[in-house]
Amino acid sequence: MISVEEATRRVLATARPLPTETIPLTQAVGRVLQQPLHADRDFPPFHRVAMDGIALAFEAVAAGQTTFPISATQLAGMPPQPLSNTQTAVEIMTGAALPPGTDTVVRYEDLQFHEVNGQRVAALQVAPPQVGHNVHHQASDREAGDLLLPSGVKLSPAEIAVAATIGAHELQVARRLRVAVVSTGDELVELTQTPLPHQIRRSNAYMVQAALQEAGAESEAFHFNDDQNALRQELPLLLDSFDALVLSGGVSKGQADFLPAMLQELGVTQLFHEVQQRPGKPFWFGEKAGGAVVFALPGNPVSTFVNFYQYVRPWLHRCQQPHYKQPRPTALLATDFTFMPRITYFLPVRLEIAPYGHLLAHPQKIGGSGDLASLLHCDGFLRLPAESTEFKAGDAFPLVRFR
Amino acid sequence: MISVEEATRRVLATARPLPTETIPLTQAVGRVLQQPLHADRDFPPFHRVAMDGIALAFEAVAAGQTTFPISATQLAGMPPQPLSNTQTAVEIMTGAALPPGTDTVVRYEDLQFHEVNGQRVAALQVAPPQVGHNVHHQASDREAGDLLLPSGVKLSPAEIAVAATIGAHELQVARRLRVAVVSTGDELVELTQTPLPHQIRRSNAYMVQAALQEAGAESEAFHFNDDQNALRQELPLLLDSFDALVLSGGVSKGQADFLPAMLQELGVTQLFHEVQQRPGKPFWFGEKAGGAVVFALPGNPVSTFVNFYQYVRPWLHRCQQPHYKQPRPTALLATDFTFMPRITYFLPVRLEIAPYGHLLAHPQKIGGSGDLASLLHCDGFLRLPAESTEFKAGDAFPLVRFR
Repeated sequence: MISVEEATRRVLATARPLPTETIPLTQAVGRVLQQPLHADRDFPPFHRVAMDGIALAFEAVAAGQTTFPISATQLAGMPPQPLSNTQTAVEIMTGAALPPGTDTVVRYEDLQFHEVNGQRVAALQVAPPQVGHNVHHQASDREAGDLLLPSGVKLSPAEIAVAATIGAHELQVARRLRVAVVSTGDELVELTQTPLPHQIRRSNAYMVQAALQEAGAESEAFHFNDDQNALRQELPLLLDSFDALVLSGGVSKGQADFLPAMLQELGVTQLFHEVQQRPGKPFWFGEKAGGAVVFALPGNPVSTFVNFYQYVRPWLHRCQQPHYKQPRPTALLATDFTFMPRITYFLPVRLEIAPYGHLLAHPQKIGGSGDLASLLHCDGFLRLPAESTEFKAGDAFPLVRFR
Repeated sequence: MISVEEATRRVLATARPLPTETIPLTQAVGRVLQQPLHADRDFPPFHRVAMDGIALAFEAVAAGQTTFPISATQLAGMPPQPLSNTQTAVEIMTGAALPPGTDTVVRYEDLQFHEVNGQRVAALQVAPPQVGHNVHHQASDREAGDLLLPSGVKLSPAEIAVAATIGAHELQVARRLRVAVVSTGDELVELTQTPLPHQIRRSNAYMVQAALQEAGAESEAFHFNDDQNALRQELPLLLDSFDALVLSGGVSKGQADFLPAMLQELGVTQLFHEVQQRPGKPFWFGEKAGGAVVFALPGNPVSTFVNFYQYVRPWLHRCQQPHYKQPRPTALLATDFTFMPRITYFLPVRLEIAPYGHLLAHPQKIGGSGDLASLLHCDGFLRLPAESTEFKAGDAFPLVRFR
C-alpha cells in the first residue's frame, strides 16, 4: 500500500497535454489558451483623452492664459481635429484621440463656460498642474508586439476582454477532456426505476458527471451490472476513445470485485492499488499505453467523492495546464481532533471565513463512508497527515474543497 | 453622490425571485433548487453490509463459536438469504442487505477460510467487538420523509448525488437570469474590423458576457453607436424582455453621455447616479416598474470591471438565492497603502495563500482606469473604506474577487 502523497504523484505523472481546437471568443471563458497573444498595436493606440472637458496646449496655460475660445468639438470616435491656434481649445470627450497641437486636458469640473459674441469660451477655474494632465498616453500600458497572454493561461473575463481588444475573435484552446463514467454493481438501478428493498439507485455516476462538468470536462455515462462479459467487450472501446475512465465500485476484496484483474487483462497497467487513507482506500489506478488512464474508485459514495477531488480533479487540471502550479489551499482546524490509525484521514469539514480572512474548518460527523447526505453540510475535506494522530485546533492542514 | 454601501443596498433591494423551470438532473449542477426534496425511503434503505466478509449471528460468537460453515453466498443486489441455522454464516459483499437471522459482519481481513468435507468454513482470527459491527443500519443516516434538500440550495455534485439517490431525475430550479449587454460609443468597432487610428475595438461587452456566463446567467449583446434614435427605438423592447440591462459607456458628464436622460424618458426610474468610489464613480442605476433593472456602467474597462463584480454579480446571486447569505471574503493587505480622497478605493491586488490559510493581497500598479491588460496580473480588488486614508499591512479588508 502506498501513501496519499505517492499516489497523487503517480496520478499526476500520467497527465498528458491536450490537442488544440479553435473556438469563437464568445465560448472561450474557462478554457485554456494554446497560443500566445501579442498586442497588435500600442495600448492605448493613441493619446487617449481620459476626462470630458477641453484639450489645449499647456504652453498657453504656462504663459498665463485662462480663457480659451472653443475652436472645435470632438467626440470619441471622431478623427482628431488639429488645433492650429494654440490660443484656442477643442472641447473633447473621454475616449477621443488627443488632437495634434494639444497635449493636456482640463476636465469639465475645473471649467466654466460662457459666450462671447456667439463664441463659446471656456474659463479655467483650476489650472492643470502639468503638461499631459488627463491624457492616457499612447503605448503607456503596452507597446505593439508585447506579449499580452502567454500560451497556457486560463481565460477568465479579463483575458477575454484583452483578446477582444486585439481582435482575436477566434482562439486556439486546449480541447476539453473526455471522460467515460462507468458504474458497475448489480445492486444499482436506474433513477426512473423503483428499487426493490435490497436495491438502491445509481448516484455515484451522477455525482461524478456533475463534478466533471464543474471541472470543465465532457463526460458520458455507461452502466454495466456485474456482467463481466459485457464489460470485457465494451471497455476496450472506451479505453481507446476517452482520455480517462472513472469507474466506481468493483475494486475492493469481494467476490464481485473483478475489475483490477480484468483491466490488466485488457492492457491497462496497474500503477497502484490501495492507498493508506480513509475513506477511499481500495482505489485502483492504471494507464493503457496510448489510451486512457483508469481511475477505479471504491463504490461507497463518500469514498468516490474523496478520491474524485483528491486525484481526478487535480489530474484534469494538470492535463489542461501542465505548467501551472495549482494553488494549495489550507484551512485551520477549528477544534482538536484525534484519529488513531497511521493513515491519511480525509476529515469532512464545514468552512467558515474567520475575521482575518483565513478559513476555519469545523469537523462534521458523518455516518460511515456510505452517508452521502451528510456531505450536504460539508464544504470539503481537511487532509490530516498519516504521521500524526492528534490534531490541534488552530493548526493549518491542506484543504480539499468541493464547494 | 452616495456611498458604495448605500449603492450596494439599493442595487440588492431590486433583486427579484425568478420563475421556476423543470430540467433534467444531468443539467442541474450549478442551478438553484426551487422545491424541497425529501427522503423517499430510509437512508440506508436496509441494514447495509459495510465490508466484504461473512454475516453471522453475534450470539454464536458470544457463546464462544469461532468457526462458521458458509451456508450461502450473497452479492450486493441479491435478495437476502435468510440464515436458518445460527451456527453457520453467509458469505457476503459490501452493499448487500443483511440477511434475516444475522446481525453482524466480520470482514475478510479478520477471517481465514478452509474446506471441511467439501464445505467452505470461515475461522475467526479477530472476533467482532460487538453486535452490529460492520453494518450500516437502516435509517441510521436519514429516515423516510426527512427533508434532504430545502428549496433554495445551490446544486453542487453532492446535492446532485442525493437527488439521484431518491430518483429525482428531473428537478424544479430557478430559471437562468437573462441579461442584455448593451454597448454604445462611436469609437468602438467590431472585433473583425481593423480600427482606424482613433478607434478601438469593443471589449467591455465580451468581458461582461464572459463574467455573466461564469455567474450562470444567459446574455445577448447589442451594440449601438451613439445613435440616440436607434437606442430610443430598441431599448423599450430590451427593457421588457430581459431581467437586466448592463450598459457600458454613456454615463459620465460628456456631451455624448445622453443615457441617463433617455432611460428616464423611457420609464426607467433612477435609483442613483454616481457613487463615492474610484474607479467607477459615474455608475448610473435604475429600474423600470415591471421590467428590467439597468446597470449603466462607466465605459472605462477597469471601471466596468469593478462595478460588475461589486454590483452586478451580487445582484445576480441575490435573485437566484434570495434567502442565502453570501460569504463575505476578506484578505490581508500585504504592504502599507495610502489613498487620500475620502471615497472607497477598489485596490487591484494579486492574491497569495499564506501559510496559515489566509489570503494575502499584494497591491498591483495599474495605469489608470483604461488599462485592462494590467488586470491580467490581478485576482481581485480590495475594497478600502472611504473613512480612512492610511491602510496598514496585515489589516483585513473586504475582497471583491474576480478570479
